[in-house]
Parts: sequence; structure tokens; C-alpha cells
Amino acid sequence: MKKIVIIGGGAAGAKAASKSKRLNPENHVELYTRDSEIAVSLCGLPYYIEGSVDDINKLIIRTPKDFLNMGISVFLNHNLEEIYPEQNCVLINGNHIFYDELILALGADVNIPNIENIFANNVFTLRSIASGKAIREKMFNSKSVILLGAGYIGIELAEAFIKNGLDVIIVEAKDRIASDFDEDFSKLIQDVIISKCNSKMQTFYGERAVKITVDENNNFKSLITESQKEFFADFLVLSTGASPNTGIAQKSGIKLGITGAIEVDNRMRTNIKNIFACGDCTQKYDIVTREPAYLGLGTIANKEGRVAAINATCNKEFEVFDGILSSVITRFFDYTISKTGLTFQKAMEYSKKVNLEPISATITKKDKASYMPFTNELTLKVVADKRSGEILGAQSIGCVGNVAQRINTITSALKARLTVDELLHLDLPYAPPYSSSVDPILTAAYKLKDQIKK
Amino acid sequence: MKKIVIIGGGAAGAKAASKSKRLNPENHVELYTRDSEIAVSLCGLPYYIEGSVDDINKLIIRTPKDFLNMGISVFLNHNLEEIYPEQNCVLINGNHIFYDELILALGADVNIPNIENIFANNVFTLRSIASGKAIREKMFNSKSVILLGAGYIGIELAEAFIKNGLDVIIVEAKDRIASDFDEDFSKLIQDVIISKCNSKMQTFYGERAVKITVDENNNFKSLITESQKEFFADFLVLSTGASPNTGIAQKSGIKLGITGAIEVDNRMRTNIKNIFACGDCTQKYDIVTREPAYLGLGTIANKEGRVAAINATCNKEFEVFDGILSSVITRFFDYTISKTGLTFQKAMEYSKKVNLEPISATITKKDKASYMPFTNELTLKVVADKRSGEILGAQSIGCVGNVAQRINTITSALKARLTVDELLHLDLPYAPPYSSSVDPILTAAYKLKDQIKK
Repeated sequence: MKKIVIIGGGAAGAKAASKSKRLNPENHVELYTRDSEIAVSLCGLPYYIEGSVDDINKLIIRTPKDFLNMGISVFLNHNLEEIYPEQNCVLINGNHIFYDELILALGADVNIPNIENIFANNVFTLRSIASGKAIREKMFNSKSVILLGAGYIGIELAEAFIKNGLDVIIVEAKDRIASDFDEDFSKLIQDVIISKCNSKMQTFYGERAVKITVDENNNFKSLITESQKEFFADFLVLSTGASPNTGIAQKSGIKLGITGAIEVDNRMRTNIKNIFACGDCTQKYDIVTREPAYLGLGTIANKEGRVAAINATCNKEFEVFDGILSSVITRFFDYTISKTGLTFQKAMEYSKKVNLEPISATITKKDKASYMPFTNELTLKVVADKRSGEILGAQSIGCVGNVAQRINTITSALKARLTVDELLHLDLPYAPPYSSSVDPILTAAYKLKDQIKK
Repeated sequence: MKKIVIIGGGAAGAKAASKSKRLNPENHVELYTRDSEIAVSLCGLPYYIEGSVDDINKLIIRTPKDFLNMGISVFLNHNLEEIYPEQNCVLINGNHIFYDELILALGADVNIPNIENIFANNVFTLRSIASGKAIREKMFNSKSVILLGAGYIGIELAEAFIKNGLDVIIVEAKDRIASDFDEDFSKLIQDVIISKCNSKMQTFYGERAVKITVDENNNFKSLITESQKEFFADFLVLSTGASPNTGIAQKSGIKLGITGAIEVDNRMRTNIKNIFACGDCTQKYDIVTREPAYLGLGTIANKEGRVAAINATCNKEFEVFDGILSSVITRFFDYTISKTGLTFQKAMEYSKKVNLEPISATITKKDKASYMPFTNELTLKVVADKRSGEILGAQSIGCVGNVAQRINTITSALKARLTVDELLHLDLPYAPPYSSSVDPILTAAYKLKDQIKK
């Protein structure tokens, strides 16, 4: 029997708790979270705001009651204040709690940019049930909104607001939308905005926000950028990303990695004995580059929570988590945008460090046999190394067309370090309603092969 | 410069011709086919009969004119009569034609079962534009049809006929529908028939057809089985599969493999110098079992045609085709049915030969985050080896839910011989409209892992 204390109730913490208990029902498992709910699907919030998820409570995947039924104690609104590694003890809400194993699933905090009046009324962040409710309520009393940041959350919220009749202004410091895709993909996403939103959505890139103006009641009035542009709207949402919550951990002697997240080994162990970390507070490792990386996503958190629990709970066996591919997918109107592994741009950066010659092939092709009704085009870009032929990454965008099918397939290829030669004979199932007889993946691989031979 | 003669105008032959010419425009490329069209998408025929492809000519992907424009001579209605390997010569329609390299893309012929009166009027096969037209025409003047054989073509045609208001009777010698899936999947497909067709589709398994009765004009009247059941309908379609067309090749000294198809090495070379074979007439190799296999599919034919052309055309470089996974996919009403690699049943058979302990995990799960609107369930079964953890195959069925996405992903895993441990941390992209945060593939992998540890 062990006493396992878990700090954090997001995807990683919830998974770590349930897994720790299941592995050995004699374990005492306690979960402490600073939030007032646990196991919330944060990625569902934009769909609640949009209205396609009709009840926000559906985003609460498990309640404290569910955990109680598993024999796990959940403490809501409990703040971690300090860790005493020497004593195997944590300070939470003023109380000392001892542990045999500690699992830190501290999550991430929304990045609050350094802007004058950032804490004005009607400036929102989105990272909880309460904030989701508040934004949806505000939306119904508003005609316009500014989104500060044009990443995934920005894109998803923009669609939600447009569908609810608002005018949307996106202000982004970087030079384009979805800047972790290659530039040509940012351009394709921009084309979707133009075709779907007309003048309802305005986008401003390369604009660094510096000041918020407020009215006499400290309500948001406008956003001013470095170039002295001023944008007016009824409210503003910060879609500026999130950063690992590591303050207390670092203060207590837990080592952070170069990404600023908690450094863990492949068993999710921190530098301190009996302390594990998992989820959005931890540093990741990129399978392709073998370098540290950071990306806070529920799917990764879930896997890490499971691995941390196995390693914290079992004395003999262990489980390894080998890293991520930075795979993402998002819906934007009836388009799907997805990527896995390295973009061409990332591969070029990486090639400054290692002996790599990035090449890429971009194809646009129908998603079904050309003679079938309701075909749609998808664009697929695959990146590879000219020298070894190794596949390095892929990006895809398409209207309805099955983008997820292709990107998911390439995740396996990346995991296995398949080469172009191996990819181009992949036996993908084919029938006219599902693909063209030469799948877009194979077409891209053929194009890469041509470049390798040159 | 070489003179390259290609026999056959299906997917393999058409690909081999265009690739041979493209690789070296100075090559003389001649394509001879017994048919009156080339480059027909046979797999599109059921959708033409159904009506979703409105013009059968759309199934002709390329015409002789297209080939003429590439500088390739196409000879329609030309029959291969003999091959003289010693002379590098073929006899076609009574003429001697010399070649430097010969590529046999002879295709497959519909299996004609040994049944009395099998050549009666209104007994159809489906493997050409003409037969597609004839069946669709007959369908409009009919109220009922018998499908002999419950494989993929049988399933696809059944749907086409039901949608056009016919009563359908399926008669199958084996004990179930789609018998190259595991039994539990045949059962799930049968459930779809029951829920979608009510009494419009009747299925009879374990019924071996022995006799067709005809009226005074030799028109089809009924089908009688070994058990003396008699089935009446307006017409009958043989959906009994197809076998490699190898007669002339074998007669001319070309070696067949144990599957009865032409034996080729991984460069698509036959046992005779300067003679290559590709497509439905050739034997395949199973990547998982490393054993000979046979499956005639356009996607495989396309790859093989390309490889044969490269190896026939180039003297220095060569290209290798390493085999197939027997991946298939088919639509059945709003369901998708797909598989790749070994079924559990196949794995059990294979385990009699090699040291293998097949295990499987079957899960049924929503295809999106549970709180999203319009979720559907999909069932996924993954087969693995308990000893090595190696993934051996997967089957999936689901209503709308993205079956193709999951099976395609597992083709990469099979190609790379990934293990359960490697699959269960696969970084599949996730967003609520596309998956649950723990993808069905990962859930299945976790279940397999539990079995491996036991």
C-alpha cells in the first residue's frame, strides 16, 4: 500500500488518480486541485460558446462523486503552497499532507500579456467552466469582439463568435494566423476566413498590443497596438496561449527544463525522489528531433498521467513515455486543419543543428474517387529528409475531405521513422467513397521520391 | 531506347504504360488489351448501378486518346495468344510483336461457378463498362435479384439494388457475410442489414448453388442449392470473386505461385528474363506473415504497375514492392467497414505455423468527444501477438464514424511492425469534433497491453 497525492485535477491529474487506484485498490489516493471542478474538457469550451454543446456541464467528464465511488478523495479549491521533498510532505491550504509518492499535474496558466489595463472588465481568458459561461453570456449582449492571438483557440473562438452573429477582430503579434503551420498553410487558412466571413472577420497581423483603454467604470473600450492602431469592440478575449504552472515546484527545488516546464525523464520522474510530474506543467520530448519541446494538450496529459501513475504505484514494473509529435487538429467552419511532426520551417531550423536536408511535397487532390458525388479537395504537405528519406512531418487542410485520416496515418509513420520509400507503398484501404485509388499520402510520397532522386 | 510491350489495360497496365513512357520519352510503349476500353475504375461500377455516379463514362479514367497524347499506342480488342520468350515475341490477334521488355498486366476473370445453366440469360457478371450498363438496365425492369456471393461486391451491389427498390436475396456458400472479417464483424454487418433493409434483403448462408432453372427462352428463373432450396428472382448477379488470368502465361512457361497467380519477385520479375508481371494476375506477398497471398485490388495494381515499369525501363536503378496488408474498405449504407492486416481468425491459423500467440481487443466507442453533437459509435478490433507485442491487424465498423481514419493509421503501424507499447502512446491529433481525447486506437492498445501483462 502507498499513499499517493496528486496535485491537479485536469486530464493528467484525473487520469493519474484513477489509474493509481485501479493498479492497486489498497492505495490511498488523494487529489487536490485549486479549481472548483475536476476533469473538465477544456478543449470543448469553444464548442459550448458556439452553441453546439448545449450544456456546459457535459464538459465535466467526471465529478468528485465519481472519484468518491472509485475510493479516491478529491479536494476542490485547494492550493498547493509548498513542497517539502525532505519530509515527503506538501503544504496545501495551510495543512501539511504527507505522501509516499507525489504526482504533480499542475497544469498551465493563460499567458497574460504585459499590457496596460489588462485586468479591465470585459477582458476574458478561457480556461475554466466559469470563464466559458462568462464569455457566452457576454457574447449574447455584444455585437463585436477582439481576439488577441490567432492560434488554435483564437481560430475556434472566432468561428464560434461569427456563428453567433458577432463582428470579430483578430489581433496577432506574429505575421500570420496559425503560425506553427508553414506559411503556405497560414495563407490557406486566411483564404477560408475570406471565403466564409467576408467583412465579419478582420485580421491584423504583426500588431503588438500595448494598451487597453477603459471607460469610467473600468470597462474595456479599445485595444491599442505598438503601431498606434486602435481597435474597438464590446469585449476582448485573450487567446494568447498558456504556460506551464511551475512557480511552487521550482521554489521547492524541482528542476525546470529549457522550455520552462518541469523536466521529467521518460518515466515522468522529476529530479526529486518520489516526485513525478505530468500534463501541461511538464516538458515534452519531440520524437522526431529528440529535443525538448512544450505543448499543453489533453491527449498528451492523459498519456503522461497514466505513465506517472504506473511508475509511482508499481515498484517493479515501469512504463515509459517516449514523447510527442506535436500533432494538432482543429475545425474551422467546414474545414479541417491538422498537422503532425515537423513543418518545413521547423525542419529548416532543425537542419541548422543536425545533418538534414529538408524537402517537401504539397499536393491538392480530391478526397474521394473523382467520379463520386460530393468530393472535396484536400491539400497535403509532407516534409522529409532528402538524405535518409525519413518522413519528418505533415500538414493538411481540406473542406470536409478527410484530413484527419491522412494526418493520423502519418503519426504512425513518424513514430516508426518510416522513409519515403516505405510510405509510398503503404497499403491504405481504398474504395471510391473514401479515397482516390492513389491516396493523397502516396501521391505526396511519389513527389518526394522524385526530389530525393535528383 | 527500349520497346516496351504491355498486355492489359487495367490499373496495372495503364500505370505501367504511362510510367514507362515518362521515365524515358524515347521508349516505344505499346499497350494491348482484350477489352474495348482501358483504365476503367471497376470499383466504381456499384456506385454507377446505385445511381450516385450519374454517367458511366466517368469511370473511364483515361482514353486511348489520352495515351496517344502521351505517345503511347493503345490497341483495344487485342487478345494475347502466346508468348515466345526465346524470341522476345508475343502473338496477339495472329500477329507477331517483338519486345525488349514485356509487362504482363493480364488482370483477373470473374469466377464462374460450376452450376448447371450458368450461362443462361439474365445471369450477369460485373467486370466491365458493358456489364455495368447491362445490370443497371436490367435493374430498372426488375423487382428482385439474387446475388450469388456475399463478399465486398455482393455487399456493395446489395445496397445499390435496395436503394433502387429491388428485393435482394443473397446466397452465399460460406457460413456468413464478408467472411474474410472475423465472425463478430460478420455479425455486426448482418445487424446493419437487419436494421437497414428489413425484409427487403434476405440472406442465406451455407448454401451451395448447384443449378439454375430457365424458361423456354433460356431466361433465368430460379437458383437451386445443394440443400434443395429454390430462390426465384428476375435476374442473378455472380458476385463470386475473381481469379488471376494466367492461362496463356502458364502455357508459355511462366511460373505460377501456390496461390495460382503469376509468381514475381519484389521487382515484379517473373521467372523469365525480360518479362514482368503486375496487377491482378500476380501473386502478392503478405507483409505481416511474409507468405504468398492473393488479392486483386486497383490500389495494389497501381503500385505494382509503377514498380514493374521502373524495373523494366531502367537498367541501373531498381524499385522494390514489398507486399500488401490486404487492406480493404467498403461502404454499406451509412456504415463503413474496413480492415488491414490479419484478422484474429487468420492470426490463429498462422499461429499453427509460427510461434505466435494471437490476442485481440475489441472496443466500441464514440467517434468524437462524447459531449459533441452528432456522435456515432465505432467498433474497433485490434489483433496483436502476446509474445512480441507486435500489432498484427485491425478491423473496424461504424456508422459515419471515422473508421477509415483508424484503419489507415494502423496500416502504417503494421508496415513498421509497431508493438502495442509503441501504439499506445501514438500522438494522434485530437480535437472534440474528430475523436475522443483517448482515441479508439489507444483504448484498444491499452486493452491489449492488459492482456500482454497477464
